[in-house]
Amino acid sequence: MVADEFDPAVAWEDDHVVLIDQTVLPHRFEHLAISSVTELIAAIKRLSVRGAPAIGVAGAYGVALAVAEHGTAGQDLDDALVALREARPTAVNLSRMVDRAAAQIERGFDRVLAEAHAVRDEEIAASVAMGTNGANLIADLTDRQDLRAMTVCNAGSLATVGRGTALAVVRTLHERSRISDVLVCETRPLLQGARLTAWELQRMGAPYHVIVDSSGPYLLARREVDFVVAGADRIATNGDTANKVGTYSLALAAQRAGVPFLVIAPESTVDHDLADGAGIDIEERSADEVTGFGGVATTPDGAAARNLAFDVTPADLITAIVTDHRSIRVDRGEVPGAVPV
Amino acid sequence: MVADEFDPAVAWEDDHVVLIDQTVLPHRFEHLAISSVTELIAAIKRLSVRGAPAIGVAGAYGVALAVAEHGTAGQDLDDALVALREARPTAVNLSRMVDRAAAQIERGFDRVLAEAHAVRDEEIAASVAMGTNGANLIADLTDRQDLRAMTVCNAGSLATVGRGTALAVVRTLHERSRISDVLVCETRPLLQGARLTAWELQRMGAPYHVIVDSSGPYLLARREVDFVVAGADRIATNGDTANKVGTYSLALAAQRAGVPFLVIAPESTVDHDLADGAGIDIEERSADEVTGFGGVATTPDGAAARNLAFDVTPADLITAIVTDHRSIRVDRGEVPGAVPV
Repeated sequence: MVADEFDPAVAWEDDHVVLIDQTVLPHRFEHLAISSVTELIAAIKRLSVRGAPAIGVAGAYGVALAVAEHGTAGQDLDDALVALREARPTAVNLSRMVDRAAAQIERGFDRVLAEAHAVRDEEIAASVAMGTNGANLIADLTDRQDLRAMTVCNAGSLATVGRGTALAVVRTLHERSRISDVLVCETRPLLQGARLTAWELQRMGAPYHVIVDSSGPYLLARREVDFVVAGADRIATNGDTANKVGTYSLALAAQRAGVPFLVIAPESTVDHDLADGAGIDIEERSADEVTGFGGVATTPDGAAARNLAFDVTPADLITAIVTDHRSIRVDRGEVPGAVPV
Repeated sequence: MVADEFDPAVAWEDDHVVLIDQTVLPHRFEHLAISSVTELIAAIKRLSVRGAPAIGVAGAYGVALAVAEHGTAGQDLDDALVALREARPTAVNLSRMVDRAAAQIERGFDRVLAEAHAVRDEEIAASVAMGTNGANLIADLTDRQDLRAMTVCNAGSLATVGRGTALAVVRTLHERSRISDVLVCETRPLLQGARLTAWELQRMGAPYHVIVDSSGPYLLARREVDFVVAGADRIATNGDTANKVGTYSLALAAQRAGVPFLVIAPESTVDHDLADGAGIDIEERSADEVTGFGGVATTPDGAAARNLAFDVTPADLITAIVTDHRSIRVDRGEVPGAVPV
């Protein structure tokens, strides 16, 4: 398994989209060539590409695929765009970046593709800025030299097309020789932490330990963590944040332990149409992700399950939201919606 | 798979101990015949028998095995008893019940075995009383007729030799036709919830859904739960409670949501030598329980992991501790250590 450090999760080559197939990591490193919107939607749904910024970029390129396939107008194009927008409901980036690329359709395929490239380039630049902003904020918040981080899911380069969101902060601190350990919540049911974040940390040479999700709150209570960083799929104007299920429990425990809890996301994740978290559509995925793993059933035959893919962390549990533009000190009453962008 | 409803997790037959092998449930229902202390210790360590009350009974029978093997005195006997006592560190029941049976050794094998049978019979009676006490308390705490329970790990008949602890409360309420759903935290890494609690609920005909552990706190935040019941491995005199890792995060979320959080355990789980939870030895188990899942590796080769098997829930997050003797309203300032037993 050899890979460029920033071999991008999503790329455009010639006339098609290329994805790192995140369903087979960490055991196999393989790319998927995607030539139709239908294939792309299937890849998004099965999480071959995932992470709010990455599926935003994938969605923008998907508009280019749709135009190549269906032309610049007509029912087939409209249907394809609706299906692409709705491939996953929780992250605001997907629908937003689809709309952004689609706004170029009447100017032709080349303009759509150029817009998708622009989306990609902006995400790469944003991840650099998030890493720096987050690392600087953490340096302000703690006097400790050797920092023990905790994170959930994968908010790294695989979730974006650059250095990541939450993991960009870890990477930046690691480059500054400040990271002594990263506690990685495995992130059931699909184990993006154990499979993907561990893989990224191993490649960057950062020390880490995988933990089961439910031990995160207790390790916080034991004061074995100096800061928590999480990504975001949608941020309301009051700061309420939807992210991978499990984020809420870490925020609860971080607050009780007095440990900074930071949400790291591009400015585009803020949904200015949303007053608070109550309006966020939380995706419920198939029960079979919970009742088995790797082809092995974990429950009795016929077991019922519920599978909420995300949760909502109320703003009062968040220390700060760090974007590519700014650090919003939610703990001091600042809110993401206060500054128009 | 056919089994008596109360086919006991631990039994004595002729000259050996019989265990339900909990490592192969729910896919296979098999018994293990255990004829030596060494085998019993291995079975306890690999969790073929688990749950604080059940390993207490197993420990008492283990003393009978030790006397049969090594006689009533000598270094081999002493070594066997020390190893048995220390097979697992967190639950108080194991060492306490080993000591209780061992106190009969100088009176001979038959008295040791009789004491072990007495331990078993007391645990069976205790589980009936816990079920009734817990169900009555919940009836006092809520006006709802149809109750949605949440539980973690397995605190059912497999964890005891009778109706269980936390799950005895669910069973009693189910017999009263009050249970509309049980949300079962799967309980990584060893999935005692998904494997064992789901199996027990299915056999008792109670409606349930398995969930990933990290979604428990969020389902509480959404007010989709009417009460949480958890077992306990050790309870300090101030009410701080050690139980399966993940319990703490449910208690945190239950308190924020205003949902009753009940600890259900036999009176013997209270450690009167322990002022608070800081003194509880939390078992850290092998990393490979975390880095794999059903024989499938989930992390990159060489991944490090931490595996805390338990956590400590501070008393201020607990509504009540229900034992076979009493309901201790911790939320009203009552503490388990206040009443000598």
